[in-house]
Amino acid sequence: MLGVCYYPEHWPEEIWAEDARRMAEAGIGVVRIAEFAWARLEQAPGVFDWAWLDRAIETLAAQGLKLVLGTPTAAPPRWLVDLHPDILPVDRNGLPRLFGSRRHYTPASPAFIEATRRIVTAMAERYGNHPSVIGWQVDNEFGCDDTIFSWGPLDRAHFQNWLKVRYTTVDALNAAWGNDFWSMAVSDFAEVELPTRQVCDINPSVQLDFMRCRSDLFIDYFRLQAEIIRTHAPDRFVTHNFMGFSHTFDHFEMGRQMDVASWDSYPLGRIESLPFAEGERNRWARTGHPDVTALQHDLYRAVGRGRFWIMEQQPGPVNWANWNAVPERGMVRLWTWEALAHGAEAVVYFRWRQYRKAQEQMHAGLLRPDHAVSAGGKEAVRVAGELARLGDLPATTPAPLALVFDYTAAWVTQFQPQGKDFDYRILKLRWYEAFRRLGIDVDIVEPGASLAGYRLVLVPTLPILSEAALKAFEETDALILFGPRTGSKDENFAIPVSLPPGPLLQKRLPLKVAEVESMRPGLSAAVAGTVSGIVTRWREVLETDLDPLARFADGAPAMVAAGRFHYLAGWPEEDLLESVARHLLASAGLPVLDLPEHVRLRRRGDLTFAFNYGPDSFALPVAADKLLLGEPLLKAYDVACWRT
Amino acid sequence: MLGVCYYPEHWPEEIWAEDARRMAEAGIGVVRIAEFAWARLEQAPGVFDWAWLDRAIETLAAQGLKLVLGTPTAAPPRWLVDLHPDILPVDRNGLPRLFGSRRHYTPASPAFIEATRRIVTAMAERYGNHPSVIGWQVDNEFGCDDTIFSWGPLDRAHFQNWLKVRYTTVDALNAAWGNDFWSMAVSDFAEVELPTRQVCDINPSVQLDFMRCRSDLFIDYFRLQAEIIRTHAPDRFVTHNFMGFSHTFDHFEMGRQMDVASWDSYPLGRIESLPFAEGERNRWARTGHPDVTALQHDLYRAVGRGRFWIMEQQPGPVNWANWNAVPERGMVRLWTWEALAHGAEAVVYFRWRQYRKAQEQMHAGLLRPDHAVSAGGKEAVRVAGELARLGDLPATTPAPLALVFDYTAAWVTQFQPQGKDFDYRILKLRWYEAFRRLGIDVDIVEPGASLAGYRLVLVPTLPILSEAALKAFEETDALILFGPRTGSKDENFAIPVSLPPGPLLQKRLPLKVAEVESMRPGLSAAVAGTVSGIVTRWREVLETDLDPLARFADGAPAMVAAGRFHYLAGWPEEDLLESVARHLLASAGLPVLDLPEHVRLRRRGDLTFAFNYGPDSFALPVAADKLLLGEPLLKAYDVACWRT
Amino acid sequence: MLGVCYYPEHWPEEIWAEDARRMAEAGIGVVRIAEFAWARLEQAPGVFDWAWLDRAIETLAAQGLKLVLGTPTAAPPRWLVDLHPDILPVDRNGLPRLFGSRRHYTPASPAFIEATRRIVTAMAERYGNHPSVIGWQVDNEFGCDDTIFSWGPLDRAHFQNWLKVRYTTVDALNAAWGNDFWSMAVSDFAEVELPTRQVCDINPSVQLDFMRCRSDLFIDYFRLQAEIIRTHAPDRFVTHNFMGFSHTFDHFEMGRQMDVASWDSYPLGRIESLPFAEGERNRWARTGHPDVTALQHDLYRAVGRGRFWIMEQQPGPVNWANWNAVPERGMVRLWTWEALAHGAEAVVYFRWRQYRKAQEQMHAGLLRPDHAVSAGGKEAVRVAGELARLGDLPATTPAPLALVFDYTAAWVTQFQPQGKDFDYRILKLRWYEAFRRLGIDVDIVEPGASLAGYRLVLVPTLPILSEAALKAFEETDALILFGPRTGSKDENFAIPVSLPPGPLLQKRLPLKVAEVESMRPGLSAAVAGTVSGIVTRWREVLETDLDPLARFADGAPAMVAAGRFHYLAGWPEEDLLESVARHLLASAGLPVLDLPEHVRLRRRGDLTFAFNYGPDSFALPVAADKLLLGEPLLKAYDVACWRT
Ligand SMILES: [Zn+2]
Ligand SMILES: [Zn+2]
Ligand SMILES: [Zn+2]
Repeated sequence: MLGVCYYPEHWPEEIWAEDARRMAEAGIGVVRIAEFAWARLEQAPGVFDWAWLDRAIETLAAQGLKLVLGTPTAAPPRWLVDLHPDILPVDRNGLPRLFGSRRHYTPASPAFIEATRRIVTAMAERYGNHPSVIGWQVDNEFGCDDTIFSWGPLDRAHFQNWLKVRYTTVDALNAAWGNDFWSMAVSDFAEVELPTRQVCDINPSVQLDFMRCRSDLFIDYFRLQAEIIRTHAPDRFVTHNFMGFSHTFDHFEMGRQMDVASWDSYPLGRIESLPFAEGERNRWARTGHPDVTALQHDLYRAVGRGRFWIMEQQPGPVNWANWNAVPERGMVRLWTWEALAHGAEAVVYFRWRQYRKAQEQMHAGLLRPDHAVSAGGKEAVRVAGELARLGDLPATTPAPLALVFDYTAAWVTQFQPQGKDFDYRILKLRWYEAFRRLGIDVDIVEPGASLAGYRLVLVPTLPILSEAALKAFEETDALILFGPRTGSKDENFAIPVSLPPGPLLQKRLPLKVAEVESMRPGLSAAVAGTVSGIVTRWREVLETDLDPLARFADGAPAMVAAGRFHYLAGWPEEDLLESVARHLLASAGLPVLDLPEHVRLRRRGDLTFAFNYGPDSFALPVAADKLLLGEPLLKAYDVACWRT
Repeated sequence: MLGVCYYPEHWPEEIWAEDARRMAEAGIGVVRIAEFAWARLEQAPGVFDWAWLDRAIETLAAQGLKLVLGTPTAAPPRWLVDLHPDILPVDRNGLPRLFGSRRHYTPASPAFIEATRRIVTAMAERYGNHPSVIGWQVDNEFGCDDTIFSWGPLDRAHFQNWLKVRYTTVDALNAAWGNDFWSMAVSDFAEVELPTRQVCDINPSVQLDFMRCRSDLFIDYFRLQAEIIRTHAPDRFVTHNFMGFSHTFDHFEMGRQMDVASWDSYPLGRIESLPFAEGERNRWARTGHPDVTALQHDLYRAVGRGRFWIMEQQPGPVNWANWNAVPERGMVRLWTWEALAHGAEAVVYFRWRQYRKAQEQMHAGLLRPDHAVSAGGKEAVRVAGELARLGDLPATTPAPLALVFDYTAAWVTQFQPQGKDFDYRILKLRWYEAFRRLGIDVDIVEPGASLAGYRLVLVPTLPILSEAALKAFEETDALILFGPRTGSKDENFAIPVSLPPGPLLQKRLPLKVAEVESMRPGLSAAVAGTVSGIVTRWREVLETDLDPLARFADGAPAMVAAGRFHYLAGWPEEDLLESVARHLLASAGLPVLDLPEHVRLRRRGDLTFAFNYGPDSFALPVAADKLLLGEPLLKAYDVACWRT
Repeated sequence: MLGVCYYPEHWPEEIWAEDARRMAEAGIGVVRIAEFAWARLEQAPGVFDWAWLDRAIETLAAQGLKLVLGTPTAAPPRWLVDLHPDILPVDRNGLPRLFGSRRHYTPASPAFIEATRRIVTAMAERYGNHPSVIGWQVDNEFGCDDTIFSWGPLDRAHFQNWLKVRYTTVDALNAAWGNDFWSMAVSDFAEVELPTRQVCDINPSVQLDFMRCRSDLFIDYFRLQAEIIRTHAPDRFVTHNFMGFSHTFDHFEMGRQMDVASWDSYPLGRIESLPFAEGERNRWARTGHPDVTALQHDLYRAVGRGRFWIMEQQPGPVNWANWNAVPERGMVRLWTWEALAHGAEAVVYFRWRQYRKAQEQMHAGLLRPDHAVSAGGKEAVRVAGELARLGDLPATTPAPLALVFDYTAAWVTQFQPQGKDFDYRILKLRWYEAFRRLGIDVDIVEPGASLAGYRLVLVPTLPILSEAALKAFEETDALILFGPRTGSKDENFAIPVSLPPGPLLQKRLPLKVAEVESMRPGLSAAVAGTVSGIVTRWREVLETDLDPLARFADGAPAMVAAGRFHYLAGWPEEDLLESVARHLLASAGLPVLDLPEHVRLRRRGDLTFAFNYGPDSFALPVAADKLLLGEPLLKAYDVACWRT
């Protein structure tokens, strides 16, 4: 199903009906509305104006369109902030961040919680049983613009309370954080400072706990809204639109509170915001990187326990990256099909029509400001036609390979990179890419989730490895590859007494990481043996009696295995990753298909999709008469689909 | 006429007479004094000490030197700031910027306005009719060090009042700013926040209005002083010394309040502060870029409606750039002649003698701290001799080509670059340079000014295009070339409903900009046709029935024309610019002269000047006997002048 | 003697005895303890707990280990900060820096001084006469993390008082600072602002005085503690562990209050923190630069007037640089021997055992967290054995060459770089390196110290040159080479009236620096004559009748001499430095030995040591039977020693 984001409050009411008609005609099935409209819905505490929204909803519903309602809590109105200035988030220097954009609140503010209850309850009561309203989106893009954090008095008090629950006594807190170091001990939870503006290094244990605390706070805030909605809106799904490649709270944990996950897909902006080399940025500037978006699809399919939507799909150039390219013609269609191939239930374009004013005026829509259909809009219409022709897509089936993704791993490596370029986002992307280049579908799983049925499991790194995670590793028959830093910390961010990979994993992998080295750009270490290539950024010195599969030039083990359990003692560059991937896939009996840099496959049930991210054609291994979409010679920026 | 800046308060009174004598001997005709001397002139509110300044003025006047008095308001004394701490400007974080340098005030402070009235009135009363005082400089370098902005409570109140005048009602304000977006509506002007410390993007409409408000505030502040001076100092000119390449307020608008414009010319520092590539920086490190200073001369000739001075001329190495080179021998003379060739009425060197102490101690003067004449001082003396030999220079005559320069264009592209390197300063410089390389003189004009008599008009970009501007374009016979983003915004920073270039220009140029793309460094688009080359940084997709003069590789129009009106749909690199320039000059019937990268010409009345910015000689197209200055083979860093 | 830093408070008391036994067994002779333990020693004002420390000391002493006690003042406890929040340092924006790491105090706080007296007195009373306690370390790494500075009200008041002492009257202050410039005059010391958050440039005279003031403040703070300790701990040495390459206070001045200097040696981290080119960083990433550490040894030998310790020696990878390499095998031993060769009395490794928790958990120790001996630990044991074999090392004898190092030179060039890359740390390193590459030992001396006995004296720069300094230059027979900017400022940071190098040096070197130029990267100036090569970054135009030893391409003097006094008018690149070094060494009759980039020599008494920082062997000019350590073919990362 295709959809659009629509803001009736931006447009004269006279054109709503025409908009609705054009949506239906274009093959749009669902419309997201009302997020950000708080000021229009509530003019003073408890003083509501629903009339305009009633009319907007009826106008859309009259065309058979289904609706997803967004709660407007990402945009607290001016009067609310004036009544309760402590709603405003506070920056690292203790200065309030001001009204005039969005997400200007901290959920640690009781006044904001109260205001949230009021608007969400009123909205859910009014529209909960509307037959056209099929789902609800809570708030918008938690964490955008560093808004998980706030450093005010309410946030400090909340952190102190959170710590009291976690540790019960200050002695336990002091022990967990190693507060005998540098005389940092506290004698009361009320003495705990937020981790900001310390004179020198901040204790990573404190940073990790503060991150956990803020993650919990937003998960609670989601749950608060979800519970209100469920009370008044039975049988409707509740979701939140996650930002991809954002790690500032635990999406898996919040996902468990949802019926379906959703995320906002802007493939081109990621080219600028992820730490790619310039050459790689230029290469994918108008297409997006072939694996970046796909990885997020696979992640949010896991977050939604099999169900996910694209709640915002880039339809053309946007406004917020350092440079904002026009997508190559065909890419809006390709991105849409790719989302569907990875299992998306719906792809909702952001936005119906480009708005001429305010912050996002340079963000394209399916319509231009002059009401004409944009280039991206034409591609969306084409997809709608193709979708209608193909009918219902089959259910997604599990991939042969699982990649373990962990928010805590992102936090640990962020707070203690040890080497400036140890970036978890890039690490997992490279592992994912290596296997996708060999034609393999990948499932993303969280640590502790069942790994039954997988042939191969990848763990790029998992610094804090729980009993539950170990159990899942033990109970699968899959080959498992652990990357560096796995098991390198206990749950309080301390090094295990038995050294990494820690007592749990050492039961299966009898080795110790005796020393670690982060390598500056320009340094590397060659690896040779069953696998070969080079390691950069990070290298470990292993102490083990295991016979190495490969060694560093100085003879030290680079990769070892004990039965199904493999360990790689460094950050693998492309050649080594490919070598490792081929070895593991062969060992697991999985066939490989060598794909060029710009082509990717993805199966959904009995359908196989192919995507071409480059200007060069690629001959697909399939006959023309089998194809449901596309041609055997997959053209530039084109999509193909066949039944297997 | 040549002049110097002189600070008698820095030197023992015993040497003033000798200084005056040496000035006269060196050929200096005018001296700027008294700016920054507030603390010496007023020791407490209304308690003045004029005696020392009286003596200094008489000492200089006794040598026949003319005087320009600077009002000292750029340097509020300590006691004033202590009496009224709200005079201090406030930074973006809401923290006051402190006493201890200069420009530490916001004109939004009523106390500062009061203090300004007192000192300026007293000074103008005392010296207004002094026969040697020929002019007044108000304050010093408005905007230096980010001092147009201040973010305190007085500034916020001032902005709110300014908005009340502009919009009358909050409904109008909300509509203009698109405040239905993200629930940003206000219900009272007092609710408007300054554009700082918002959580994410700031509305560009707000930023533009705040910039306009601050620009108006400083223009009003200038006018306040100018009116006081005019009351007490009849027939003296009033000016302000603008900083070149500074766009933080509208110099044209302030210029209208002046009798003559003036600006401070530091050619070497600009090499570091403009975003040039390193190679270009190295090439011009000891000469300055051949077009950067020239463009400013042409700009301030327009700002002063034909009349401008150089109020501060770099006489040697300075102190404030990242690196501070010694000018190539000859450059101080060359810069002086270039200013005169562009129409400057006077060139005032900053400063007479290098001061051994405080912030600017590494800034050269015409004299060294040991009282000897500096290298630059010797070149000034040489110019003085040459000037005496040549006699009065003829009046400046209009150039064949006008380049439209717009402060609002600078603001719009700054607040919404859309591509990180879309820099208006560079854009207009490159267009200017391309035509100067072909030997063409350029006039700078503001939008809406008459274009009568020009053969060619360049509009590198003009995002907000007014009725008045259109009228001027319509009423000239010149060919006009509009660059990308012209007409892309209405006066409130919204995209026109009819898409760029907007309804006004679309009357003449029937086209729509359907899509825009900013291109990261490394990306480009080839253009071929009547003109050819490449486009970088910015490209537009045009929708038009016009037959393109040139197309992009994908067939889309790159340059189109409808009669005299031409439009270029991208940021032209050097080759394309040259190609466009040759086409337009040929079409306009203007002859070209191919100049090497380091040589430039400039006419003043019937005189033609030639300047050599490089180490290689250049054979001038003129016979030796015609030359008033220099030789037919123009040597390194040399100047020539002949009558045409 | 070898030692370790030990924190009994981090470890269960049960293992202390075993730790002590293992230390003794490993050849460790001395243990530093108690620094940072304030919270464990004093739980409330005047409420002490000594029992645990008593037991720790006895346990160590029982193994014959000697002790250095650290006063714990770098780590004020939470309760102290809560009682007196004005202890916290204040950042440049006026915001307090918070509890939660270390060094969170300003000595301008009377409450902190009081608390310091209390804890230091109590500690000195208790342990002052303990027979195993041989010395005391005051506080820890003054200046770490920008903690010399604090910008709060107490700091401002302290600065004002300091100025009153220095200048007596505000007139003198105004004159010294040139406060007639920009109306900056004050009429009372209480009006002086700290040099922060001014609108534009800050007066360098103010910055220099504030730096001097803070330097004095910390020297006084050291003296306060030293006096208390000396009262109660007769015949014990008092020291402080300086941070190398840290210039934020005058180490010579503080050193005069000490019995022995000490410093903390982390060779690998410096590779990242000094402004080296990437190639140089990669080359020495796992060894450290061959001269960086050596220069510090020579410096602190001077600071300690012949006596110095390494109080913290890097034993493996650390945690705090951008990247943290594993030292090449052998380097921990090499670094230790190098310290000893330069005269260190003891090398104390930081730390005994890697701590699993808190900020420094990734910092290696001699033991790993699993209690096994680390790679570095094994090298320390090897050195202990070698040391035992060699017996007492001879006393250090003076080098033939002295390099004048001046903290004020660091401050002047920092506050007025004039060229962005004029970095005093690099300048003096390059001069030092050039002579060490020719096999010459170097003594570091402060300006004014006797230069008797030296054959050659290097002064890379000395902007403020005192009468005492001149006297020392006059009273030696050595050849002296002065670098650029020498004598360029008077004691108040003003340019001398007679121009640089100022009236004192001009008595010996009749020249004037008429102009200076800082050159951006990419610019250079060739020098030819008796010496040749190129100058970058900085060039001076000399006015002199002296016959130049070498000239710039434009004929201007590049190097001149008047008798023993030589002057170099630019920043010499490697080739020019080598040329200058060979000329001076030949003139001084000192023999040279061409060493490759990676090999260095150092004499201690009649012993000569050789160090190999690279992977390639080097044939030493010594027979095998003369060698006390190593072989004639000096292997990679190896050390040799022979008697001369
Ligand atoms: Zn295997
Ligand atoms: Zn044309
Ligand atoms: Zn010599």
